Amino acid sequence: ETNTKSELSTSQEHPKLILTAQGVKDIRAQLGNIPIFDKSLQAVKEEVDVEIEAGIDVPVPKDYSGGYTHSRHKKNWFVLQKAGLLYQILDDEKYAKYVKDMLMQYEALYKTLPLHPKTRSYARGKLFWQCLNDSNWLVYVSQAYDCVYNYLTEEERHKLETNLFKPFADHISVDSPQFYQRVHNHSTWGNAAVGMIGLVMDDEELINRALYGIKDLKLDATKKDDDGGYLNKDGKAGFLANIEEPFSPDGYYNEGPYYQRYAMYPFLIFAEGLHNVKPELNIFDYKEGVLLKSINALLNLSDADGDFFPLNDGQKGMSYYNGALVTAVDISYHFGDQDPGLLSIAKQQDKVLLDDSGLAVALGIKNGKEKPFDKKSINLSDGPEGKQGGVGILRNQDLELVFKYASQGSSHGHYDKLSYSLYENGEEIIQDYGLARFVNIEQKGGGNYLKENKTWAKQTIAHNTVTQNETSHYNGKYEIGSQNHPDLHYFSTDNDKVQVVSSEVKNTYPGTEMLRTMAIIKDEDFEKPFLLDIMKVTSASANQYDFPYYYFGQVLQTNFEYKSPEILKPLGTKNGYQHLYVEGVAKANKDNSKFSWLNNNKFYSLTTVTDNNDEILFTRIGANDPEFNLRRDPSLLLRRKNSKNTLFVTTIESHGNYSPVTESALNSKSNISSVKVLLDTKLYTAIEITTINDKTKIFITANTNALKEVKHALTINGKNYEWSGSYYFK
Amino acid sequence: ETNTKSELSTSQEHPKLILTAQGVKDIRAQLGNIPIFDKSLQAVKEEVDVEIEAGIDVPVPKDYSGGYTHSRHKKNWFVLQKAGLLYQILDDEKYAKYVKDMLMQYEALYKTLPLHPKTRSYARGKLFWQCLNDSNWLVYVSQAYDCVYNYLTEEERHKLETNLFKPFADHISVDSPQFYQRVHNHSTWGNAAVGMIGLVMDDEELINRALYGIKDLKLDATKKDDDGGYLNKDGKAGFLANIEEPFSPDGYYNEGPYYQRYAMYPFLIFAEGLHNVKPELNIFDYKEGVLLKSINALLNLSDADGDFFPLNDGQKGMSYYNGALVTAVDISYHFGDQDPGLLSIAKQQDKVLLDDSGLAVALGIKNGKEKPFDKKSINLSDGPEGKQGGVGILRNQDLELVFKYASQGSSHGHYDKLSYSLYENGEEIIQDYGLARFVNIEQKGGGNYLKENKTWAKQTIAHNTVTQNETSHYNGKYEIGSQNHPDLHYFSTDNDKVQVVSSEVKNTYPGTEMLRTMAIIKDEDFEKPFLLDIMKVTSASANQYDFPYYYFGQVLQTNFEYKSPEILKPLGTKNGYQHLYVEGVAKANKDNSKFSWLNNNKFYSLTTVTDNNDEILFTRIGANDPEFNLRRDPSLLLRRKNSKNTLFVTTIESHGNYSPVTESALNSKSNISSVKVLLDTKLYTAIEITTINDKTKIFITANTNALKEVKHALTINGKNYEWSGSYYFK
Ligand SMILES: [Ca+2]
Ligand SMILES: [Ca+2]
Ligand SMILES: [Ca+2]
Ligand SMILES: [Mg+2]
Ligand SMILES: [Mg+2]
Ligand SMILES: [Mg+2]
Ligand SMILES: [Mg+2]
Repeated sequence: ETNTKSELSTSQEHPKLILTAQGVKDIRAQLGNIPIFDKSLQAVKEEVDVEIEAGIDVPVPKDYSGGYTHSRHKKNWFVLQKAGLLYQILDDEKYAKYVKDMLMQYEALYKTLPLHPKTRSYARGKLFWQCLNDSNWLVYVSQAYDCVYNYLTEEERHKLETNLFKPFADHISVDSPQFYQRVHNHSTWGNAAVGMIGLVMDDEELINRALYGIKDLKLDATKKDDDGGYLNKDGKAGFLANIEEPFSPDGYYNEGPYYQRYAMYPFLIFAEGLHNVKPELNIFDYKEGVLLKSINALLNLSDADGDFFPLNDGQKGMSYYNGALVTAVDISYHFGDQDPGLLSIAKQQDKVLLDDSGLAVALGIKNGKEKPFDKKSINLSDGPEGKQGGVGILRNQDLELVFKYASQGSSHGHYDKLSYSLYENGEEIIQDYGLARFVNIEQKGGGNYLKENKTWAKQTIAHNTVTQNETSHYNGKYEIGSQNHPDLHYFSTDNDKVQVVSSEVKNTYPGTEMLRTMAIIKDEDFEKPFLLDIMKVTSASANQYDFPYYYFGQVLQTNFEYKSPEILKPLGTKNGYQHLYVEGVAKANKDNSKFSWLNNNKFYSLTTVTDNNDEILFTRIGANDPEFNLRRDPSLLLRRKNSKNTLFVTTIESHGNYSPVTESALNSKSNISSVKVLLDTKLYTAIEITTINDKTKIFITANTNALKEVKHALTINGKNYEWSGSYYFK
Repeated sequence: ETNTKSELSTSQEHPKLILTAQGVKDIRAQLGNIPIFDKSLQAVKEEVDVEIEAGIDVPVPKDYSGGYTHSRHKKNWFVLQKAGLLYQILDDEKYAKYVKDMLMQYEALYKTLPLHPKTRSYARGKLFWQCLNDSNWLVYVSQAYDCVYNYLTEEERHKLETNLFKPFADHISVDSPQFYQRVHNHSTWGNAAVGMIGLVMDDEELINRALYGIKDLKLDATKKDDDGGYLNKDGKAGFLANIEEPFSPDGYYNEGPYYQRYAMYPFLIFAEGLHNVKPELNIFDYKEGVLLKSINALLNLSDADGDFFPLNDGQKGMSYYNGALVTAVDISYHFGDQDPGLLSIAKQQDKVLLDDSGLAVALGIKNGKEKPFDKKSINLSDGPEGKQGGVGILRNQDLELVFKYASQGSSHGHYDKLSYSLYENGEEIIQDYGLARFVNIEQKGGGNYLKENKTWAKQTIAHNTVTQNETSHYNGKYEIGSQNHPDLHYFSTDNDKVQVVSSEVKNTYPGTEMLRTMAIIKDEDFEKPFLLDIMKVTSASANQYDFPYYYFGQVLQTNFEYKSPEILKPLGTKNGYQHLYVEGVAKANKDNSKFSWLNNNKFYSLTTVTDNNDEILFTRIGANDPEFNLRRDPSLLLRRKNSKNTLFVTTIESHGNYSPVTESALNSKSNISSVKVLLDTKLYTAIEITTINDKTKIFITANTNALKEVKHALTINGKNYEWSGSYYFK
């Protein structure tokens, strides 16, 4: 019976893969009346017309990325896909002929091709130096083929399928198992490529190879690829396995949003094709709907401007304006539950896909269904089963806390356990450095990862968390990092005035445990929400703990005295310390040390519990950076020496603002007069915050049993505190 | 006959000063139909209603600025002026009563007041610690008095005039001649205050005192004020003298745009009053219309966003959104020639004055007369007669060059002769540092000038010009600086593809002359306009020349090899050098040294003619800055040692862009393959620029006779060049 269904569904008329025959009818009926679609169509038409005018070029493969033949073949795949759409939508044979002519040139070329002459890849392609790019090509070109399928004669189709598409699909799969037969974002492209051409060609064997991997193939489990990753340690392969592994049940992608954006397209476009051609697979329901959930997760991993949080190796500025997110948003709207919030993002993107899903979005916008995409606090578990930590995002008014207690994040992960970044209305208050790379800027190491990515960006000291004894988490070893992860202690956002996330990690350093509890509190005695940060360190041995705050902007005031060296020297010699200059040195205050700064015309204050033995350093990135690969960004670094168990408690306030136009400074001072630890035991940590108007706030977190239902009773300084749940605040 | 006229004009009905009786009629007739006026009115009404609700407070004077009594009296003057307007426009006695009640409290208080208890000022006020603020008060309150004049009984007016306004005007003038009787922006406030209350009270004696100074008073010409300026060296005084001195015939204000914005209000508001009450004075035609010209000059001294160029002690971010510029724009529109470009600025300001001029602007906008305010290249002479240098601004597409060859600029001037800054679409490419001050941010030295303003911001090395032998221009001495100035050599913008400004200065260093010629060139072989900078130094002695470029952003590439020290040390010990860290050291290349950088997703390249003996340093501001008062900004510094006559020739290109969303780097490389000096004589300097496509451009500047009509003929390397005018380019 499955076979019959499949027969049925795959025998429908073309186009059927992404654009559908019914979709074409609907689109043609609406053309001219769907502004965002019409505009997107016009832009594509102008682009393709220029290419048609310029003429076809299908050069003999020769170059690495950046070189001419690489760029040309890459451009061709995009133009083919777009020309196919234009043929269907505009019903103008000019586009079909263009696609046919170029495909025939590829057919003529491909059958003559040996392996690509460049030898750097572990899996060489034929059109490109690596199978990954050959796969990219086929994912796009299979869409073009689908669009002109009926325009071609059976003979032409036979020629293309026999000499081009089938051998092409075979080369990137059965001929390149080290590329194809694994769980890896490269393989996802390979699976999608094979599967999509299989769907168009109605080739069940290719479709099954795409979904489940190469049949009966077992690879050597000990072999590694260029990056040092295992080629296929556990034998898993195929598109479905590739969905299983990297996505948590909440849709968090294990490498973080920047790489999720990169990996997104083949997941979604192949899923769309499967949905259209093989609806019986219910691909969008697979793993409880994880593909659509992942889009929602990704959108929530962006700041108020739509910029993705630069977790792991993420380049700042990548945002939901990226084309892959147009695909994601449109697919999510059309194949999901038509969330009107997605329409507002589509409107910001000002672009839709030229297919059924783009039409749905365009109609939704046209019919005024749009609502703001309301980003709320969200906890995203990490790991295939959601049991390897996660990312907790707390949002209140303009403030966003991004708390990273995720697992290692594959080869793009950082040694940043329990780190965080803090945003206000899309601007960084406390930054995550991101990566040390200028993607595609050739002058900077060819646009590739710079060595400072390893020596600085991945290191623990580059992050807003604790570094012990000047050594990175897991000793900076991927092997150890990928076998460990923090665990969620609790995530509580029921009360939107007091939102808390808490996580613990055991093995970042042998014998040391860390429990970090971060709260965003909106209290009536404060102008804006503020951050309360409690880091509880338990260790069997005496250590040095370094705790940086990577702020931006101008130092305004400290309540401690510091000395500025006339000569700047590096703070250390390794693990990232070699990249920090010391710009100021202080002995901390007995009770609280306070630091205020000004950035982007807003005032910020940090108040932290210290004692006389603590040191405070002003640092700046840039030492041992002979090629100016790093940004010269500052930090305030709290250093506690020779301590076993210890507690770091810090508040960060955003307050007031400065106008350079009226030259008025409003509310430029901290609202907090003191932060005090009332109690710190294995079971509880209690903090008292006193405002400058002498209002007192108590926050108590349960360090062990934080279940919602649990009742707590506690006496501190003769006062009784009783509550249910993870924390107390009043 | 003059007397009769004056009688006539001053006997008109109230209000007559700023708001006029006819204006009130016109405004009332249009209310509800003039959106920007209605909106401005609503905002003022809300503000005043809150104050009326809160009740009147007229405290006994006690504090310096920042303290309560200072802030309260300052707030009162604004509220009084606004309440007066509301009474007239809304015809609601509530506002008149409020003004009357508060004025009566001032009357009761003022007659009891001794000098203000704080003694820091050279001219103490009574309500405030300095006469300047008393004058501010009277400038505003005279407007309020005019608005409620007819609401008051004759007895009430007599009481106010006798006990409050007349003694108030006397205190800031005849009782404080050291404040009043001079040419100084403080005195302008004093003159306006005395004159405006005189106009309302119809007191010819006060009006004359305002216009011409205190009759028959001669001050000791050798006495100095708190800032070390002469109290009155040449005996000039009064409002007209205060217009004469600081404004050049082009309307450039000698301290620069930041202080012009500050000084603007009393000039314009008193002028408006004089225009209304004493039209026979033709105040807006005074000195060939310099007041209105000065507004045009000021608007042209802003970048594409409306931010004023931070010349001299100017704080960045001050812009034409400042309230004083609402006054300036509205007055300029109404009393000038109704320039439709001003309407577009008023629209951006989103606010108009609640008077006749604001009505005119609101009607202009409503009637669709608005056009873009098209900033063009402009040369603004400096000095009372326009003979003390100037500021030349070259604009082409998004590029703006601000070339400063002005005179010292009084006490707020910098030692920055022939310096420049470069902007692209409102963003700084090569910055002028601005000042070292955080105005009104109390945590930073009380919001006052920081000592780094003198040790850094004013120094020559802080500017994009040549420093000789690590010493600032004029030896950093105000006395010398204010007796010298550069001179315009030529300013040529007839050909908008090749715009050039050239100026020379003789006495910055004894025996050294500098001639700088800067061109913005838009050539068909270049993507965007680029800067060509030719600095010709002639000296009797061998010197070290330092030439910094204060760029922003990330180093991308150099064509020279440099070494980065592991330890950062200051570049020098004085004259600003103590504030620069050395981050890199290079020996320059034999022909050209090239430096590329990335800022705000745009690419920039600098190409400069060097030889093997030149050094290139990477510097960063921040050494010897123990309170983090300075921004940590970078520069590239070209150093030439042991040279007498020399030539610096540099091109700066903006090219291409980077998108972090698509990760594409467009046109990221310089278009220039070489810059060469073909000829450099006393008479001519000829430069050859070759593009990467081997196109050759020749620029020749006439170093002595640059008159437009002059014909030049020249043979270089056997090739003949003939042209008329200041320069040749092909
Ligand atoms: Ca990071
Ligand atoms: Ca952002
Ligand atoms: Ca600007
Ligand atoms: Mg990181
Ligand atoms: Mg932003
Ligand atoms: Mg300056
Ligand atoms: Mg700007």
